[in-house]
Order: sequence, then structure tokens, then C-alpha cells
Amino acid sequence: MSGPVRLTDTELHAALGAMPGWEIRDGRLHRTFRFADFSAAFGFMTRVALVAESMNHHPEWRNVWSVVEIDLTTHDAGGITALDVTLARRISELAQAVG
Amino acid sequence: MSGPVRLTDTELHAALGAMPGWEIRDGRLHRTFRFADFSAAFGFMTRVALVAESMNHHPEWRNVWSVVEIDLTTHDAGGITALDVTLARRISELAQAVG
Amino acid sequence: MSGPVRLTDTELHAALGAMPGWEIRDGRLHRTFRFADFSAAFGFMTRVALVAESMNHHPEWRNVWSVVEIDLTTHDAGGITALDVTLARRISELAQAVG
Amino acid sequence: MSGPVRLTDTELHAALGAMPGWEIRDGRLHRTFRFADFSAAFGFMTRVALVAESMNHHPEWRNVWSVVEIDLTTHDAGGITALDVTLARRISELAQAVG
Repeated sequence: MSGPVRLTDTELHAALGAMPGWEIRDGRLHRTFRFADFSAAFGFMTRVALVAESMNHHPEWRNVWSVVEIDLTTHDAGGITALDVTLARRISELAQAVG
Repeated sequence: MSGPVRLTDTELHAALGAMPGWEIRDGRLHRTFRFADFSAAFGFMTRVALVAESMNHHPEWRNVWSVVEIDLTTHDAGGITALDVTLARRISELAQAVG
Repeated sequence: MSGPVRLTDTELHAALGAMPGWEIRDGRLHRTFRFADFSAAFGFMTRVALVAESMNHHPEWRNVWSVVEIDLTTHDAGGITALDVTLARRISELAQAVG
Repeated sequence: MSGPVRLTDTELHAALGAMPGWEIRDGRLHRTFRFADFSAAFGFMTRVALVAESMNHHPEWRNVWSVVEIDLTTHDAGGITALDVTLARRISELAQAVG
């Protein structure tokens, strides 16, 4: 079975155009989210955890109080794949819902 | 040390006037919250859990998919106290934030 | 596409034999879990939420402080199906892990 | 009101002696926790979140799949205080409970 395949630079930049706030950092999809307080940040993280577990694809993330920094990559593919783009979009939707 | 004291009927009805959506059911403060899906409901519950643990005062609650039903009472006081009113207000704020 | 099918009484009782602690109550798989405190109970609930969302099959559950009561049924099938048995088993494993 | 005060080096090393697994890294209390999978890691994080919010003292933390890295410091005091030691001990207890 073939797994997810690394996006080409062309594909990646096309995808990024529709993903406001996300950028490439150290070869990974990166975005920083800022919330009102820890409660809002952790409520968001819980919803991201539900999505990640459902996709069986998990973020590398860091939280300090109201700030959540997320990096996405697909280890098996050695880079960013369509899985990361899908997860990034769902994360963006959740962040918008949390406000 | 004296603990929280049951509100009188007069105090309780005054409080309820400022708590839209809450009612008295079986001697407890009761409200039903409806969200878009399970993810939104559980994100809300996680934030309620953080408040409850901070107050060391916890809800009796029930979840089915996108619906969360909450009942508040103070066992040590044998009824509804100011603690329940405070927790109810914070829960209402969280529900509004989650949308 | 056919969905999950209600288990026959024979299938259900065979399944229950391998599910210590679970019983049939009001036509649903039912079990009560008791933990050390609210933190342990809610940590367990969070892990159950991750499993439920991954299976797209969710419990009806109730929490009061350290106690979590869970009821499982498959609404689309009008009763208990193999989905409920699978979810029940995974929930039992999580409860054992939490202790 | 005076806030928490930075521990002296002597106090800090005495405290560390009773905190297996924790070390000083970049001026903060640091420890890495490894769990069986993401579910166990996030269940642990949820319980840490409940403690942190109750103490109104929050970790800087990072999660990748089953690994949780935690750094503790007290920004207001410009270093490690008794608050961090208390939070670290409670985090260690939770990690042991999760297994």
C-alpha cells in the first residue's frame, strides 16, 4: 500500500494560497494561534485532538498560556502531504469557531 | 468555618432573572445546551471542567452527541447556593464563547 | 449501504460474557465507572471522547464528580450493535489504564 | 502583596533531589514524559490542564504523538519558584497515575 506522498513545491504553494495564516517553517506547515486565555486555548486543543485522532494524523504543537503553535508534517513521507493540508484546514475552522 | 448557605426562594428568583436559559428542576439549577456537533459539545465540556475544578465545585451533567444537560446544586448545603449561581454564570459565558 | 445491524439476544449475551461490568439496562449497554476524583474521571472521559470521535459513534454518558455512567446503543439500528460492543471494550480498556 | 519568590540555588537543588526525572534546562524545570500513544498523552495533558488552571499557574509544554515535554518557570519572579515545584510534583503524580 502506498502512503501519502509529499506535495511538490507547486502543489504546496497553491495550497498555501487558500490557507491564510499558515506558512512553511523548517519544512513544516506552521501557524500560531492566540486566544483570550488558557481555557480558550485548551478548549481549542481538545477539539484539535479529536480531529487528529480521527485522522490518525497528529500535530507537533506547543502551548504557553493562551498561545498555541502548531507544526504539521508527515513523517512517513518525509515532508508535507495532502494529509497535513487537510488537518491544517480543519484546525483553522476550529480556531475560527473558538474565536 | 461555615460553608455556602442555601439561597432563599427570593434570592434564587432574583438570581434566575439574570440567568437566561436556566431554570429550577428537581431542586437544582438546570440548563440544556445544544451545539453543532460532538466536538463543539466536548470542547465546551472541557472548558467547564477547568472552571469547575478551579472552583472545586462540579456539575452533574449528561452528554448525548451535541447536547449537554447541566444540573447544579451544593450537596453540603442541601440545595442551591451562590456557588451554583456563580458556576452557572461562568458556564453560560463559555457556551456563548463556543457558539 | 447497509448500516450496523441489531445483535440478536443470543449474540448479545455471548458478547456480554466477555465484557465484565457491563449489563443491559433499558435496552442499552450500561456500565458505571468510579475513579479517585474528578480529574481522573474527566481524564478518562477525554480519552473516551477521542475513541468515540474516531469511531464516529458516541456514548450517552453522565458524570457526577468521580463517577461516570455510560450507556451505549446504535440509534440507526434501534438497538445494540457490534459497534456498541467494540466501543464498550475500548472504554473498558481505557478505564483499566486510568485505574 | 508580594508574589512568589525565586528559589535560591540551594533551595532549588534540595527540591530537585526529591523530584526524580526533573532537571534544570535553560533556567526552567524540565521533564519529558513518554506514554503509550497519543490518547494516553492527551488524557494526561487534560489532567495537567485541570491542575494548572486550579493553581492559576500554567506550563510551557510541547506534545508530539506520545511524548509530552514540560517546562516550568514563574514569569513574574523571573525564575523557578515554589509554585513550579508544587506544579511539577502534581504533574509527576498524574504521570504515574496515567502510567
